[in-house]
Amino acid sequence: MNGRLIAYLLSILVLVLGLCMVLPVLVSLWYGEPSARQLFLAAILTGSLGLAMRAVSGRPDDRYLSHRDGVAIVTGGWVLAGLVSTLPYLLAGAIPSFTDAFFESVSGFTTTGSSIFSTVEGLPRGVLFWRSLTQWLGGMGIIVLSIAILPFLGIGGMQLYKAETPSPVVDKLTPRISDTARVLWKVYVLLTLVQIVLLLFGGMSLFDAVCHAFTTMPTGGFSTKNASIAAYNSVYIEIVVTMFMVLAGMNFALHYRLLRGDIRSVRKDPEIRVYLLIFGVLTLLVAVDLFVRNCASAPEALRYASFQVASILTTTGYTTADFEQWPAFSQIVLLLCMFLGSMAGSTGGGIKTLRLLLLAKHAYLEIVRVIHPHAMTIVKLGNVPISQSVLRSVWGFFILFMGIYVLATLVMSALGVDFLTSVSSVATCLGNVGPGLGAVGPTEHFGHMPVVGKWVLIACMLLGRLEIYTVLVFLMPRFWKD
Amino acid sequence: MNGRLIAYLLSILVLVLGLCMVLPVLVSLWYGEPSARQLFLAAILTGSLGLAMRAVSGRPDDRYLSHRDGVAIVTGGWVLAGLVSTLPYLLAGAIPSFTDAFFESVSGFTTTGSSIFSTVEGLPRGVLFWRSLTQWLGGMGIIVLSIAILPFLGIGGMQLYKAETPSPVVDKLTPRISDTARVLWKVYVLLTLVQIVLLLFGGMSLFDAVCHAFTTMPTGGFSTKNASIAAYNSVYIEIVVTMFMVLAGMNFALHYRLLRGDIRSVRKDPEIRVYLLIFGVLTLLVAVDLFVRNCASAPEALRYASFQVASILTTTGYTTADFEQWPAFSQIVLLLCMFLGSMAGSTGGGIKTLRLLLLAKHAYLEIVRVIHPHAMTIVKLGNVPISQSVLRSVWGFFILFMGIYVLATLVMSALGVDFLTSVSSVATCLGNVGPGLGAVGPTEHFGHMPVVGKWVLIACMLLGRLEIYTVLVFLMPRFWKD
Repeated sequence: MNGRLIAYLLSILVLVLGLCMVLPVLVSLWYGEPSARQLFLAAILTGSLGLAMRAVSGRPDDRYLSHRDGVAIVTGGWVLAGLVSTLPYLLAGAIPSFTDAFFESVSGFTTTGSSIFSTVEGLPRGVLFWRSLTQWLGGMGIIVLSIAILPFLGIGGMQLYKAETPSPVVDKLTPRISDTARVLWKVYVLLTLVQIVLLLFGGMSLFDAVCHAFTTMPTGGFSTKNASIAAYNSVYIEIVVTMFMVLAGMNFALHYRLLRGDIRSVRKDPEIRVYLLIFGVLTLLVAVDLFVRNCASAPEALRYASFQVASILTTTGYTTADFEQWPAFSQIVLLLCMFLGSMAGSTGGGIKTLRLLLLAKHAYLEIVRVIHPHAMTIVKLGNVPISQSVLRSVWGFFILFMGIYVLATLVMSALGVDFLTSVSSVATCLGNVGPGLGAVGPTEHFGHMPVVGKWVLIACMLLGRLEIYTVLVFLMPRFWKD
Repeated sequence: MNGRLIAYLLSILVLVLGLCMVLPVLVSLWYGEPSARQLFLAAILTGSLGLAMRAVSGRPDDRYLSHRDGVAIVTGGWVLAGLVSTLPYLLAGAIPSFTDAFFESVSGFTTTGSSIFSTVEGLPRGVLFWRSLTQWLGGMGIIVLSIAILPFLGIGGMQLYKAETPSPVVDKLTPRISDTARVLWKVYVLLTLVQIVLLLFGGMSLFDAVCHAFTTMPTGGFSTKNASIAAYNSVYIEIVVTMFMVLAGMNFALHYRLLRGDIRSVRKDPEIRVYLLIFGVLTLLVAVDLFVRNCASAPEALRYASFQVASILTTTGYTTADFEQWPAFSQIVLLLCMFLGSMAGSTGGGIKTLRLLLLAKHAYLEIVRVIHPHAMTIVKLGNVPISQSVLRSVWGFFILFMGIYVLATLVMSALGVDFLTSVSSVATCLGNVGPGLGAVGPTEHFGHMPVVGKWVLIACMLLGRLEIYTVLVFLMPRFWKD
């Protein structure tokens, strides 16, 4: 492994994070909060760590990165970001325990949104801003990861987005990773700005608007209000947030194309249709369930259903209703949404529409094979045949996702956590959603979970976010062999 | 399709069932029950139907069966058996509603064991005997289906057992289906007889011993006692039943080999090791959970854990404890067991050890491929490479199994069934287990479920039993085209 180059690249990450930590300092100063000092200390410490790492690594001449180096950078980067980002929480005294700070921090960078805070409204604004910023930065990382890095590492079927495969969705956006990143980040920043403006129109304060836009685009879900989006009780704000959650759950390459006026390739994309169909159908089903079971009037049912389905399906995790009080059917739909997730190439988590589509097509063709055993059955997306290699990756992903889900759920319940909480806390963390059901429901938090349980959920957030493979390879002895 | 031949073969099935219905008549006569008359009428009606079908079909000259004919016979056979077998229940007045009678009947022939009876101890012995007999007959059907028919239809990875593939487990037992059936049925009958004798030693009445042996070997789980095996409160009986449940969960081809003294091929079988390992590990985990949480003393914990894990993992469904009172971890383990199931080629249901093994190996190799993208990664069982065709079947099976599970659970909850009951009733019926959790727990029954829900569960029992593909092909328009 090219250890020096890895250390060098990670040092840049830490330096950037240190620079970013100056922003919450400015926010704290603006609001005259005493925590500005501690936040500044966190920035200084992080910056120093970055400089120290850079001093150790030097400027490496060997610029070659192997597959393994790529994996090490991705996973190492996310863990490292989670670690240094505990500093603002710990130093500002917002979170006393390291486990809790790491949980909140990883929940930020993985854009999960599960929180250990029972209340956020008393926290310094600087800390709240940093909390939202971790998700926004995490979202930037994910876009590059899923569209530029994972395809080249050949992970979880994302190699479909590799330039070699003439995929209907993304061929070459631009030839090099850094160019791709820059282009997609522009889209990301633009959408964030538009959302801030629209939220300001709705009467949100600038601070809240920025914080919520910072946690919508990465499908994060951290809020500055205890009651999440419900606190505003504004249909306008809910519509804006729903719209941007659905946008954030779309492949960012499509946004880029759309912005360049290329409507045709978006229309022809097979994944987006399924994604929107799932959103529409599940919203309708939940709305009918709420209406029929007298939980809400027809317009209210549609209002709560559309927001909550969008929030959980895109794996954002905002809430406008205590869906724990909803009928069993609606709860099961939301639990299902945690697994389904949004589109590949978006900032959302879960199994993702693209994979679900490929799995469904495969299963269908296998039924056909029972009738016509010698029929040529090739899974296609649009008109493009999908290689066996991609399909094997996708199957592997699905098996691993389900396997890790089962294992982690068993561990949670072994720690004494009740049935519904075990089953849903793992689903929500592995899917990078945010709230679960039971003791971690929409009006609850994760602070009271057992310490070991928090570490299990931290692992789930990272596994889900980094498409599982990227984390599991570290457990393989042959990864460490040369 | 060769409609005449299909009708001819199904007429034989109905005739055999009519003949079998004479047995409960004899039981009723022996105990001097007035229901003997009605049971006799059921036998006469079934026999007449069989003769009528045979008269219509004639003796077909064209003896060629296509893939589709095979599928039609298998699915048609199970549905038809379920239908005619409602007659004893309905005519004897044991079950007034047709839906309930069909539920009980399909639960019998699919060897599920879910029951609509809130109490069975007041039922005529003739009816109870018929109820047990449906499971025993269903078990015979399954053995032939999984070892002789499905491999040739190429369904769900069972083609692994086809003569062409030099599988480590089953090559050619005997060249023709009917010979294979005869050999395996001998094993089945022999094991049943041994169990009857062992249960008699334990002080069970002959009637109870026969009825329980008739529902153990097919991993059925119908009992003649309301409290199931707990009613005997005998460690000896529990050990005997556990042993035979574990045996029934094994590939019957292995039993045949074992009886012929071929210990080596059993030892070399990769599936049986995993099956026993799963049984051992899960028993231990549940026992520790029960002990640590002060639900039982150490020996009692082991006693209840081993019985209950064996019962659910082999998809039998007997109970010796109200596991709804167990801690969340143990409940989740049992729920998991409903999905895992027993070995392929056994009478058990669920996903099955063989498939789980192949899925796990595949997932492992996909992680390896991330490290060595160009490595040749071929899934092997023992030393035998598994063809892509088999793997694709297995993946398809897993996807369909999970997909149907989710859909059916959604429908159950939409009918107003609560979370835990929806989630577990579908798992237990699709896995052909028997009891679930919540309102269909070990001390409960399925009689109070909504009517539509009963039909959904009936469909799940058939889908699970017939390896999903065999039922789903009927929904494909191209199945009906020539």
